Amino acid sequence: MNEELVYINGSYYPRSEARISVFDAGLMVGDTMTESTRTFRHVPFRLRDHIVRLYKSIKVARYPSTPSLEEMERITLEVVARNAPLYGPEDDFWIVHNVTRGSFQAANDPSRNRSEATVIVFTMPLDLTYWARFYEEGCHAVTPFSRAIPAEALDPKIKNRSRLGYTLCDLEVKLVDPAAQCILLDTHGNLAENKGGNVFVVADGTVLTPTTRNALAGISRDTVLGLCRELGIPSGERDLQPYDVYTADEAFFTSTPYCIMPATRFNGLPVGSGSVGPITRRLLDAWSARVGVDIAAQGLAQLRAATPA
Amino acid sequence: MNEELVYINGSYYPRSEARISVFDAGLMVGDTMTESTRTFRHVPFRLRDHIVRLYKSIKVARYPSTPSLEEMERITLEVVARNAPLYGPEDDFWIVHNVTRGSFQAANDPSRNRSEATVIVFTMPLDLTYWARFYEEGCHAVTPFSRAIPAEALDPKIKNRSRLGYTLCDLEVKLVDPAAQCILLDTHGNLAENKGGNVFVVADGTVLTPTTRNALAGISRDTVLGLCRELGIPSGERDLQPYDVYTADEAFFTSTPYCIMPATRFNGLPVGSGSVGPITRRLLDAWSARVGVDIAAQGLAQLRAATPA
Amino acid sequence: MNEELVYINGSYYPRSEARISVFDAGLMVGDTMTESTRTFRHVPFRLRDHIVRLYKSIKVARYPSTPSLEEMERITLEVVARNAPLYGPEDDFWIVHNVTRGSFQAANDPSRNRSEATVIVFTMPLDLTYWARFYEEGCHAVTPFSRAIPAEALDPKIKNRSRLGYTLCDLEVKLVDPAAQCILLDTHGNLAENKGGNVFVVADGTVLTPTTRNALAGISRDTVLGLCRELGIPSGERDLQPYDVYTADEAFFTSTPYCIMPATRFNGLPVGSGSVGPITRRLLDAWSARVGVDIAAQGLAQLRAATPA
Amino acid sequence: MNEELVYINGSYYPRSEARISVFDAGLMVGDTMTESTRTFRHVPFRLRDHIVRLYKSIKVARYPSTPSLEEMERITLEVVARNAPLYGPEDDFWIVHNVTRGSFQAANDPSRNRSEATVIVFTMPLDLTYWARFYEEGCHAVTPFSRAIPAEALDPKIKNRSRLGYTLCDLEVKLVDPAAQCILLDTHGNLAENKGGNVFVVADGTVLTPTTRNALAGISRDTVLGLCRELGIPSGERDLQPYDVYTADEAFFTSTPYCIMPATRFNGLPVGSGSVGPITRRLLDAWSARVGVDIAAQGLAQLRAATPA
Amino acid sequence: MNEELVYINGSYYPRSEARISVFDAGLMVGDTMTESTRTFRHVPFRLRDHIVRLYKSIKVARYPSTPSLEEMERITLEVVARNAPLYGPEDDFWIVHNVTRGSFQAANDPSRNRSEATVIVFTMPLDLTYWARFYEEGCHAVTPFSRAIPAEALDPKIKNRSRLGYTLCDLEVKLVDPAAQCILLDTHGNLAENKGGNVFVVADGTVLTPTTRNALAGISRDTVLGLCRELGIPSGERDLQPYDVYTADEAFFTSTPYCIMPATRFNGLPVGSGSVGPITRRLLDAWSARVGVDIAAQGLAQLRAATPA
Amino acid sequence: MNEELVYINGSYYPRSEARISVFDAGLMVGDTMTESTRTFRHVPFRLRDHIVRLYKSIKVARYPSTPSLEEMERITLEVVARNAPLYGPEDDFWIVHNVTRGSFQAANDPSRNRSEATVIVFTMPLDLTYWARFYEEGCHAVTPFSRAIPAEALDPKIKNRSRLGYTLCDLEVKLVDPAAQCILLDTHGNLAENKGGNVFVVADGTVLTPTTRNALAGISRDTVLGLCRELGIPSGERDLQPYDVYTADEAFFTSTPYCIMPATRFNGLPVGSGSVGPITRRLLDAWSARVGVDIAAQGLAQLRAATPA
Repeated sequence: MNEELVYINGSYYPRSEARISVFDAGLMVGDTMTESTRTFRHVPFRLRDHIVRLYKSIKVARYPSTPSLEEMERITLEVVARNAPLYGPEDDFWIVHNVTRGSFQAANDPSRNRSEATVIVFTMPLDLTYWARFYEEGCHAVTPFSRAIPAEALDPKIKNRSRLGYTLCDLEVKLVDPAAQCILLDTHGNLAENKGGNVFVVADGTVLTPTTRNALAGISRDTVLGLCRELGIPSGERDLQPYDVYTADEAFFTSTPYCIMPATRFNGLPVGSGSVGPITRRLLDAWSARVGVDIAAQGLAQLRAATPA
Repeated sequence: MNEELVYINGSYYPRSEARISVFDAGLMVGDTMTESTRTFRHVPFRLRDHIVRLYKSIKVARYPSTPSLEEMERITLEVVARNAPLYGPEDDFWIVHNVTRGSFQAANDPSRNRSEATVIVFTMPLDLTYWARFYEEGCHAVTPFSRAIPAEALDPKIKNRSRLGYTLCDLEVKLVDPAAQCILLDTHGNLAENKGGNVFVVADGTVLTPTTRNALAGISRDTVLGLCRELGIPSGERDLQPYDVYTADEAFFTSTPYCIMPATRFNGLPVGSGSVGPITRRLLDAWSARVGVDIAAQGLAQLRAATPA
Repeated sequence: MNEELVYINGSYYPRSEARISVFDAGLMVGDTMTESTRTFRHVPFRLRDHIVRLYKSIKVARYPSTPSLEEMERITLEVVARNAPLYGPEDDFWIVHNVTRGSFQAANDPSRNRSEATVIVFTMPLDLTYWARFYEEGCHAVTPFSRAIPAEALDPKIKNRSRLGYTLCDLEVKLVDPAAQCILLDTHGNLAENKGGNVFVVADGTVLTPTTRNALAGISRDTVLGLCRELGIPSGERDLQPYDVYTADEAFFTSTPYCIMPATRFNGLPVGSGSVGPITRRLLDAWSARVGVDIAAQGLAQLRAATPA
Repeated sequence: MNEELVYINGSYYPRSEARISVFDAGLMVGDTMTESTRTFRHVPFRLRDHIVRLYKSIKVARYPSTPSLEEMERITLEVVARNAPLYGPEDDFWIVHNVTRGSFQAANDPSRNRSEATVIVFTMPLDLTYWARFYEEGCHAVTPFSRAIPAEALDPKIKNRSRLGYTLCDLEVKLVDPAAQCILLDTHGNLAENKGGNVFVVADGTVLTPTTRNALAGISRDTVLGLCRELGIPSGERDLQPYDVYTADEAFFTSTPYCIMPATRFNGLPVGSGSVGPITRRLLDAWSARVGVDIAAQGLAQLRAATPA
Repeated sequence: MNEELVYINGSYYPRSEARISVFDAGLMVGDTMTESTRTFRHVPFRLRDHIVRLYKSIKVARYPSTPSLEEMERITLEVVARNAPLYGPEDDFWIVHNVTRGSFQAANDPSRNRSEATVIVFTMPLDLTYWARFYEEGCHAVTPFSRAIPAEALDPKIKNRSRLGYTLCDLEVKLVDPAAQCILLDTHGNLAENKGGNVFVVADGTVLTPTTRNALAGISRDTVLGLCRELGIPSGERDLQPYDVYTADEAFFTSTPYCIMPATRFNGLPVGSGSVGPITRRLLDAWSARVGVDIAAQGLAQLRAATPA
Repeated sequence: MNEELVYINGSYYPRSEARISVFDAGLMVGDTMTESTRTFRHVPFRLRDHIVRLYKSIKVARYPSTPSLEEMERITLEVVARNAPLYGPEDDFWIVHNVTRGSFQAANDPSRNRSEATVIVFTMPLDLTYWARFYEEGCHAVTPFSRAIPAEALDPKIKNRSRLGYTLCDLEVKLVDPAAQCILLDTHGNLAENKGGNVFVVADGTVLTPTTRNALAGISRDTVLGLCRELGIPSGERDLQPYDVYTADEAFFTSTPYCIMPATRFNGLPVGSGSVGPITRRLLDAWSARVGVDIAAQGLAQLRAATPA
């Protein structure tokens, strides 16, 4: 396979040569707005929604100068068009946007320091091998002892790359289980979100997820809530505590790459029966039907292919 | 002036060619530990202390693989040796360490994904022109409405580059005054820190600064507390509120580049007499005496040189 | 009347001889999960729901070894069968489950110290004389100054016997009125719950109760919400503050023994008219109708019988 | 060895027959005040201080009726006198006080329900085998994700037996390491205490421990602070965060049975050198010298005796 | 124009002579309950609702002695009858109630110090010139750094005159823009309210406003929610964060004098298109239709009249 | 006795005729800065310190226009000079400053609405009869369930008249005991202050008081800390919880009128011995000695004179 091309500020670079200055604000102060979109059979899923959210982040972060939303969409489709032929027909790929504030100069007044934003758009193979077995077994959700950054300090609805807090939480849960997936709590002890996704529980037939007070307004989350409405499954947003996961019938995460990832253990205890539950399966099936891809099967196929015989 | 060389993972690059992969964790998830040291007459100030703190950050962030502390010090001194001749004898320079977790792969288990850290060490001219006039006039300290990230979410004592929250706070205070310097409050309303420094007040002859519960344990902060002890000025660490700045006799920031920056206004009101106070001056003089450089004079000389006649 | 029999770990003891070791974890560290069910005309009310909740508590508390839920139900019914003949046909009784972690050994690793749980099941006469007058007069609800334990420290949805905090709150409100019934606030000042029940207000025809974020998910609470749905009375769960009780038209508590207890004063002020309100009465009547027992009348009859002529 | 005698409300029972009613408030609502004292060569250590603190707890808990402090001391000494001959001359023992509010009657007004308190005093062999290896290796301190109960809900300075929250925290850290010892954080993310002891760090030669805002005012903690004063080791009480443990030179717990237990790992990372530090050793030596018992040696001797050859 | 008459405790005074003792509790301790009602074409709008809320405030504030609600309504209508002829037919007026606890004596036991309340009722011209341009341009909403007083300290649902906190917040936002209108955050960073009104956002066709947990239950707010129901516009109450205003399509304030005030900037950024949005207009039109007054036109007419040609 | 004169904005009025407009900001929005000074034998005590603090409050409240500090002092001394002859030689008096923002106009931009401040200065007899018996018996300190306003909402160090929250807390504690004196807790459950004074405990010979994080920096508080230093009594400022009062040896309040008021009960339990303690007496004696007035004796003489034979 040839290398994908990476778009950086108007030019295309082979992946292995895609670099930015070490003086870029993205590196110097984690000042990067971001989106990750996936494809289904090479068709981007809700790409417009991702780009709209990117521009919400860019607005709230007060970036002085970026391409227009329409121009960004055009760039994105061109990156997709150039790279798509590199991926197999059964495989899908990520489309990643990283937009930084541009060059960084510590001593200067940031309000006047209006460099052009750095725009990076690239694709990557959607490698599901890490998550694939969770479609069948479910994963182990674990709570770190550090808390999610509260919105009054940095709103998680701003999808950004200053993610150290999340990374440290993720490393904390790996102390419990190297394969653990984290569920951060907010500073009041309510469920917040996963380091890269949202969390849901199913109890007595109702699908529940935390509000967006301390969580990203995830597009996969929104897709699941929409599927619930279509399927007639009661659903809602409200404050949840760890007790609600321990005593749930089912639990799952949502995120762009895996869509829905069942969680069958929580802090060492089984969730419900300890195996993937029927409503989780139903939602994943409905999502697969909508996009014309058996989502779990695709991941499991990758896993089998990656496993030495 | 020729270009400085930037050390990246064992190689040296001219500044304009110093780049890292867009797939580095520093860019992808703001996963960078950092230090900034300055020189006085080309002599690094408390370099060892900065490197020791860097390794505290690296430890707490659980970086899997970095050079030893001694090796890092050796690299640093070599960068200094190579670049120092480029700076004028009256000028000083920053020495910056940015160490990232290395390459980033979203789909992989981070606990097993033990790439080598990315080590970047560079120098930059210590440009004080932005701050220099504050040595004489004092600056305008302003409180943003967003709060500092609490230590239970991400401890500010970990000196890192996931700084978006601080940048947004700094942009908030620029709404009040384009030259404003921010004083973040913690989530309980106590003074925390500046986006890149610590804050002090002087009241009734006593120098006070917030504890490190929600602030970096700044080396400049430590230098000032040490100078207080030497000069017999009573000093202490305790919770402070905006009222304490409004009613203080003097206030100042501390940070590596400017050492001590007087603040003579706070949220639109004068601090004390509204001009730089005697204890602030005494501390700055004592610091200048220790390092053999008139710190304020150096900045003001830069400013004059930069100002068109 | 003969003594009831108390089930303890497979044996039956007369009430006055029912004892456990002073080294049991229930006494040594308050490590007891519990349920209290009442009967109506000797028929247990929602016994299965109570046992299901008991097993949720046991699960979350990670008890290493307990009988199965079905076995617990069988034991319970046998205790009921043995003791029911001791109670008069007009009287009802409590069915209490106390399940402790078993023997306690301070110096041992609790994760390896897997003794059998201690299972205690007993019945007691349902003595309503303390509460009976409140059916007619309403009680005086009072707010203690201590706060409810937040779920991030110990979730009140785990129905347990580490109740010292609640007892102290109850003693605090007795300083105001020896007959006061407490309404704890959570650590943010919202209404949480009573020491042994839930709290409701009625305002403009709508029945409101706090969410379960900081309150037991009471079965009596659930019964009232169900009755509201059946009777077409609008109802909801949301954050409430003391102001909402002061200005409510009606207020009441729910708990297993008394079902619904009207509150006609709150912190010394009348609630609504100061007498028991129509929606409260309607809910109590509907409950009585469902179970075939005039709940208030039963309590008042006990009170009359207990009052010296 | 014969059985120890347990004092219960004026009578003595062999340990295996020491029982209390299942209707006691100690079991029914975790309403028990407690102290644990240890001996050194059969001499109780700071027994008077423990009994004084017990009576502080009893006062704050508003127990209506207990023996006088002097009577409690007399009872205690008699229990010691009766049981001491059962322990070997090299062995020591616990002296445990459990005082409950007495009989519990759910339906009665607690302010009028003034039964006699239940007073239980017993001794137990001081079995240090669980902790002994930590004197040499240090233990692994781990932070649970649940938080300590805040003082506004139930002050940890009241030494009581409603300990479920602590037990659950301890089980959480066992998910990381079956031998882990917990360090609870308070609801703001500061270090609080261990489930049965206090925590200290040593940094730059100074011994620091959290204030008693959210921690028991431990008598062992007080002993260590006193030893610091005697030995001229700087010490202090202040808010500490996990960062302070990660970056400390040494860390240790204090509690009655083991006195000082070094912690050489914290959440999977080494503390300082990863082995027991010099100030920890010096404090333990000073304590041993004061009481005439080599504290660590006693524990290690027990461990060797308990280990099959 | 002659002077309006001010009712004070049974007497009428010309406005310029309306005074109260400097020893009144209203001045001495800010102990005043208040309502402000406006007229439309001289007809008071929801006067009864305002008076009912006044008596809720008076009740919660435990005022010992006030006229009955009916008497207060009668007084109010008489004040209106006396003063209405002074206002032009196109003009409207405020009706203000200020009821204080009466005379203040610092040294006396407040529970026994039962003076008569001081009742003040007056009217004032409804001068909309300050706000009128916002009907066309929208205003600039800005967040102060101080926080709203939490309900656990003083519930904002008690409509009172201890308003210093709000005034200081309003002065803070004037540092950003002399015409800024404040949106206070609660102590957790959620939107609370304006210093004298409520705040709404419109997103994806849904009208949202914070709950009353930390905000006045505004009658204008209630009017807007009622208009939404009538017009079939989805609406709801929930926690909102600054992000929700930045990314909203529309935003507006509600308050008695101006009814609905569009906000087209928030902290320096445009809200939606940066001009007054269609749902805001629709709600204002519906309100105008209900009361038979073109609300915006009335204000703009005043503004034109007040502007020198 | 003739009437005292009240200074209002340059004029003197007899007390019974001292009035301000009902449109003054002091009444309309509780916008009043205040100080209360007392005399000892007609000599004002620390008057300059009170006026300095008044001007701190005025500064932080951003009053646009007030007399100079020196002018205020001159006015004050003239008020004293005029009124002092009205008080008996054994009696003392209050000197009260109330400074409001001036006239209030709701519809106007407050930043431009720069009316002159309203300055009110008066004296009142220092009537100690309410407190006098507490010098001998001690008072009953009680904790309300509402919390002190946190500094992030309105800093209590700003001495102001928006005091409704305090008044409501005081009424809450009167539910427990009509003579109760309140100790407010802050929103984290630490002791804050009394509605008009500070609170101290004495434990093991050390005098402790909360920090000023959530309390007025009282001048009487400062006097007591100064007396401690002079008398060699160890003292300090730190977070205290109700437990610390329950278990203290002594407790007392400080405030301008009574100076030191012993508290011998706390929430229904005795503090220490339940009678006034030796350190409290020693401090009161030292204060009396400093000012040449037996403070307690003066109050008790008033009480005897006021009590019918």
